[in-house]
Parts: sequence; C-alpha cells; structure tokens
Amino acid sequence: MITRRALLRGLAAAPFAARSLLGAPQQPPRVDAAALRRRIEALSAFGRPQGGAFADGVSRTAYSDADIAGRRYVIDLMKAAGLRPRIDPAGNIFGWRDGAAADAPPILFGSHIDSVPNGGNFDGDLGSLAALGAMEALAASGARTRHPLEMVVWAHEESYAFGRGLACSRIAAGDVSQADMDEVWNGMRRADAIRRIGGNPLRILEARRAKGSHHAYVELHIEQGGTLERASVPIGIVEGIVAIDRYDVTVTGVANHAGTTPIPERHDAMLAAAHLTVAVRDAATRTPGRQVATVGRIEVTPNSPNVIPGLVRLTVELRDLSPQKLAAMADDIRARAREIEQTTKTTIEFRRLADAAPAAATPEVQSAIERAASAMKLTTMRLASGAGHDAQMMARLGPMGMIFVPSVGGVSHSPKELTSWSDCANGADVLLRTVLELDAI
Amino acid sequence: MITRRALLRGLAAAPFAARSLLGAPQQPPRVDAAALRRRIEALSAFGRPQGGAFADGVSRTAYSDADIAGRRYVIDLMKAAGLRPRIDPAGNIFGWRDGAAADAPPILFGSHIDSVPNGGNFDGDLGSLAALGAMEALAASGARTRHPLEMVVWAHEESYAFGRGLACSRIAAGDVSQADMDEVWNGMRRADAIRRIGGNPLRILEARRAKGSHHAYVELHIEQGGTLERASVPIGIVEGIVAIDRYDVTVTGVANHAGTTPIPERHDAMLAAAHLTVAVRDAATRTPGRQVATVGRIEVTPNSPNVIPGLVRLTVELRDLSPQKLAAMADDIRARAREIEQTTKTTIEFRRLADAAPAAATPEVQSAIERAASAMKLTTMRLASGAGHDAQMMARLGPMGMIFVPSVGGVSHSPKELTSWSDCANGADVLLRTVLELDAI
Repeated sequence: MITRRALLRGLAAAPFAARSLLGAPQQPPRVDAAALRRRIEALSAFGRPQGGAFADGVSRTAYSDADIAGRRYVIDLMKAAGLRPRIDPAGNIFGWRDGAAADAPPILFGSHIDSVPNGGNFDGDLGSLAALGAMEALAASGARTRHPLEMVVWAHEESYAFGRGLACSRIAAGDVSQADMDEVWNGMRRADAIRRIGGNPLRILEARRAKGSHHAYVELHIEQGGTLERASVPIGIVEGIVAIDRYDVTVTGVANHAGTTPIPERHDAMLAAAHLTVAVRDAATRTPGRQVATVGRIEVTPNSPNVIPGLVRLTVELRDLSPQKLAAMADDIRARAREIEQTTKTTIEFRRLADAAPAAATPEVQSAIERAASAMKLTTMRLASGAGHDAQMMARLGPMGMIFVPSVGGVSHSPKELTSWSDCANGADVLLRTVLELDAI
Repeated sequence: MITRRALLRGLAAAPFAARSLLGAPQQPPRVDAAALRRRIEALSAFGRPQGGAFADGVSRTAYSDADIAGRRYVIDLMKAAGLRPRIDPAGNIFGWRDGAAADAPPILFGSHIDSVPNGGNFDGDLGSLAALGAMEALAASGARTRHPLEMVVWAHEESYAFGRGLACSRIAAGDVSQADMDEVWNGMRRADAIRRIGGNPLRILEARRAKGSHHAYVELHIEQGGTLERASVPIGIVEGIVAIDRYDVTVTGVANHAGTTPIPERHDAMLAAAHLTVAVRDAATRTPGRQVATVGRIEVTPNSPNVIPGLVRLTVELRDLSPQKLAAMADDIRARAREIEQTTKTTIEFRRLADAAPAAATPEVQSAIERAASAMKLTTMRLASGAGHDAQMMARLGPMGMIFVPSVGGVSHSPKELTSWSDCANGADVLLRTVLELDAI
C-alpha cells in the first residue's frame, strides 16, 4: 500500500539509474522487444481461424480449448523464467519474484489472454506478455526491487462466457459467492468451466485477495479507441474506467408460421427486438456526450426463415463515466420498450446483469507512469478508458493505474486490431519503469 | 393423368359403396383413428426436447439424427404394412400398392416428417401417417383400386437446412442439377446430407419423376392458419398455394469495441439490420391485402455483448398469391435498404434464393375432395394456402390437390401447434375417400 509518506518520497525520487540497488549508476533494464513480438505472434496461434494467419485474429474465448492451450503456453514461459507460476482457485495465473523486503506487499501487474469471438491479438495479450518480459528483464539485469513483484494473467476477462466479463479478477476482488459456481451457460456449469482451466471451484472463496495485499496494481493495455493515434501520442495515462451497465433483455412473442399468419395477428419478437435496437441507439444520441449504447448479442428462437420469431434474447450495454447518465439512458430505453410492447403485442423484460462502477486510477500511480514515460522521452496524455478492465476490480483493493498504447484506427475486438511493434515495445518498457517507480514510493 | 373423358366419368361417379370392385355394396374403409393418434405421438419422440412431453413440440430438422430416427420409424411401419418402402436418390420415401390396371399411373399421396427447429407434431406428420393409414385401411378391407397407389414421405420439406424448403420434392419435380450436391450449409455438403438419409447423390438426377407419371397427387395437411377454426369448418379444400420470394441478406459493417468506439464512428451492422427488419414489416402493410413479409432468421457476428456487430445475415421472406405484389414489396425493401446503408454506414446485399411460383390446385381434384367430404357429411370451404407445400412441386407434374384440417388458434411451426384428434381422423378419412374418388376418374 502506498502511504502518504512514501508518496512524498516517490515524488521526489531520482530516476532509476541513481537508485539502483546494485549500487552503481546504470541504465534501467529494457524489455526484450523481439521476444515480446515473437510471443504475441506465437500466442495468436491458439484460437486462430483454421488456415488463417496472424491478421485473421483469434477466437480464444474463456474456457475454450484454445484458451486452455494459450494458458499452457504462457505458464510454460513463466516456468522457464523462474516465476513459479500458480493457478488460484478462480483460474487466475500468478508468477512471483522475491523482493528485498520480505514482508513488503507485492507490486502486481499483468492483464489477460482470453479474447472475444473473432477478436484481435493485442487486447490482453500485450499486457500479459509485457509483464512477463518485465520480469525477465529484471532477472537478466540482476536488479532487485524492495517489494516482491507479482505478475498476473487474469482468467475470463472478456464479456462472452456466462455473459459477463472481468469474471475472475472480480473473484480476486472479493465479489463472489459459492452459489455463483452453479451458474450455467451454454450447458456448462461455471464450476466445471473453472475446473477446466485448473481452478478449484470448491475453494473459490480462497481466491479472494485482501485489501492492501498489494502495493499497487498496474496494467499495460492497448487503448482500443483512436484517441492516442489521432493525437500522435505513444503513451496514454488512464484517469479512470467508465461505468458499464448491462442488461439481458428477453422479448417474448408467439412463434407462428410465416406464411399462414396474417400481419395483424402476429406477435413478432424479432420486430420488437428491431424496434428496441433502434431505441437503444436513440437513447445514446439524445443528449450530447461520449456515452455509448450497444446491442451486440442477439439470439432468435426458433431462427428459421419461415417462422415468425417467438423469442429473442439480446444484450443492451451502456457505458459512460457518469452513473447518472447511464441511469437516464436505461430509463429512456425502458420507456420505449413499454411502447414497443403495445405496438408489437410482445413482452419485453430487462434483467440487469452486474454493472461495473466507474473506477478512478490512483493519482500517484498516474504520476509514476508519467515519470516512467518522461524518462524515456515519450509524450503522454491523460484519457478515460471506454473499455472495462481487470484494473477496475483491483482498484477495489488498492492503488491502481493503467498504461495505454495506440490502437491503429482505434479498432479492437476485431481481427483488424493492431498496435505497432514499436508502440508495444514502448509500452512494455514504460510498464517496467513504472514498476520500478512504484517500488521507490 | 386425369383425362377429360375420365373426368366426365368421375363427376358422374356414384359413391364408393356402389363402385366397389368386390362387387357387393359396402361402406368404404375407414382409417384407424386410434392408430393414427398413437403413431403421431410415437413419432413426436424423435426430436423431442430432452425431458419434454408431446406438448413441448419437436426439433426434427432435415438430416438431423432425429430426422433419421423418425424416418426409420415410418419405414418400419411401411414395411409392416407390406408397402415395400424404397428411398429414391433424393432421400424421399415411397411405398407402393398394386392396382388392378397394371399399366395405370399411380395415385400419389403423402406429406413429410421433417420439422422446423422447435416445431409442432402435426405439420407433415399428419399427412404422412394418414397416407400410411389409408393404405392399411384399403388392405384391411381387401378393396382393390384400378390405379396403383403410391404413398410418399418427402424429405427436407421445411426451409431450415440449406436455407430452403421443398428441397426433395423439388428434385422429384425435375428442378435439380448435379452441381447442387456441392452446396454447403453449416459445414455439411448437400451430397453428404442426402447420403445421411439413405439417398444417393451420385444418381440424384434419377430422382426426377416424369410429367404425367402419376394420375394425381393429393396431400392432407394442417391449415397452419386460423381460417377453418374461425369458420368452424372441419375440411378445407385448397385452391392454390401462394408464391414465396426469399432473400438472404448480408449486412456488413465494422466490428469494433462497444466501449471505445464513439457513436459517430460506428458502422453497426445490427443497427442496420434492425432498421431493415422494420422496413420489411412496413413493406407488407403499406398496401391493403393479405401479403406477408417476415424476418425469421438472423445471425450476428461476432455476437458478443461488448462488440459492435460487424456482420449480420438475415432472411427476408415475402408471400402472396400475386407475384406482382411480391415484386413490389421487394422493390420497396431494396429502396429502404439503400437509405439505411447511408445512415448506418454499412452495406446491405440481397441474394435472391429460389422463389416458389404460386401453384393452383387442379379443379377436378378439388371436386374429388369435395365429394369425399360431402359423403362423410363434413362441411368444406375453399381457401388459399399461405404456406408452401410439396404439393406445389407435384403440381408441375400433374393434377394436384390438398386437404386442410383446422389448426387450433391458427398456430403452427411452434410447439403449440395442435389439431384435434377428431379433425385428424376426419382428414385421414377424407384423404382415403379422395383417393378412391380419384381412382374412379
């Protein structure tokens, strides 16, 4: 835990070269950029479309065979780096490097390697493999930190399996009950899913980490938006992560024959879902601001060309830094849904899935990132994260910060997701230096 | 083939009792209603939801394991009835009973047993099992017809597999090429699908039947609409089958992160699909009439709550007795699609799937049905079929007629699909008597 006193020390701290525990001034270690690239490319093979290439992206959804294979690949790298990898009961992978002060809490850093279906090769992978590279660089340099260092590869970050994301960092943050393990998704029990990736659902409560059990958490991630690229700034310092509100919506009509049922007698769940999708967009654009609203997933039953759909399930996702704005959008959408029910003779039910509160990045961690980038003569800008990240779960336990690197074209969650290798390397080095900055405060 | 001369005879024909080949006046045989019900219930087990009951409907989609098991059940019944069942190269099942005149063309009758996903237990099943019951009743009575009798269970009637229906009666009607066997749907080649159900894709062209190769075709089917029930009429005489126009529509946007992509930068394929779905409904209601338009199937990619959909495929289906009205609806929808492309920054492509022309039922077959119902003191009404049927394919080869029985609530293509057992029995007896009426002309 960063104390006020430590912070004062930190703010005044000299750059790494002058503070080396080895005694002699020296350049801080650098992450091996070639190895980082090689590993991102190698990891992309797990979940790659059949016959595809790196540019065809990846479907390494949580708990899939590809996810398990990718995790095995990373665990083997961590073993080779002497990090004594362990899997906690939630399935999160941790690696450890001792510090000089045995009783100091660790500096925790990492990301995730699961992807959305048809996702890209940088979201999560970069932060996870850069964390490993930072560990290796320190080992190679012989540098010893005061705090122990702990890297993490969070399990099940993306919102696909079980319809929610940040699932296993959420457990680490303490938001879990034994009953959660009985949840079923696509015919799979959550307990079995977690067991698949080496977790232990029977001891799931032991995956909870205590408040203050780490000195700080820092995560390198691609921006997934176009702000840094448009500003030609290589390093983003995250000020906070937007709040997310997500609803599972069930539209119920009556399935009937598409040829024999006259239009006035229809209860068409798909038509109602279409009107609702338009209403969701309207709710986001009714007032100025950067709020967004998305219908990303839709399941139609029976989904046959000659049957009027009787049932549609869809997701509505709302994001903004202001929870008040989210609530206003949700109210707007619900009011429109009441009207749509009348005109389409259907019923529309909203089930609110666990929402994510906005999470502010700790100012002192932001400053540490700024000093790290500045030492590398890299320009920075502050920005909000429109995407959710495991970091917001760690913000519940202690100081948190995030480093962003540019996404080409702002594209993410798509095979077209791309970050230049030099930006990847810069991000990894800023991560490493930030860890050292945090160690000093 | 019914000739004009035969028709004159037929119109004047005395009822069955006076025309029996056995010489003595007698009541015409009746279909065993209890056996019919028992078999409809038994067939419902193939494709029933796990742990479900009869009322939970059936998913016996063409080429599925359930379809294959259901077909095996029916084939065994046909064997037991001495009908020497054979499977043609397209997978259609035929049964045969000799007539007195060895060179007369057969009277063909039957239906199908495949279902839509989450369908009901009467659509197709009734007509198939009633055809079998009619064959058995004739055998039990010892009555001999002049024409041979041929029953048929058409394969792949429903528009689910390969995105089209009437698939195997279409082949029998001559609309097939060897290249069709290379079509792929859900990773399955059509040749392999047909092989699964005992067909022979290498000899597919031999499944074509010649024009005039049957005396007449007649099919018993549930109405699938509410007209008969509302009028309290037990027997419907189909005047014709509406034309169907079907489009496979591809909406292409750009998949991107739902949190980090501002609304103005989105190319949301789901939003475009929603606008199009509303436009399809509008096209059907813009002018008076009974035309219908349906979006029944939709597939979203990547279909994840936190990804803006980059690709949506959906089906648009239009039905009306007038091909001109169909064309006008299609033009309307395409024009709206051009506007939606602009406002949503997506592209919308229409691929027209094989359309079905309207098919008129042969007046002489309609009259035969009327006489059959009248002899049983059952009231009748003439109506159009909003649904497509294998009968429309057989209309290309010779005289065709259809018998409808009431659907409770007009519901079909749903587990709620229901026809009373007495209406089922009436329909089966009218089918049997119609066959005898046709035999006399």
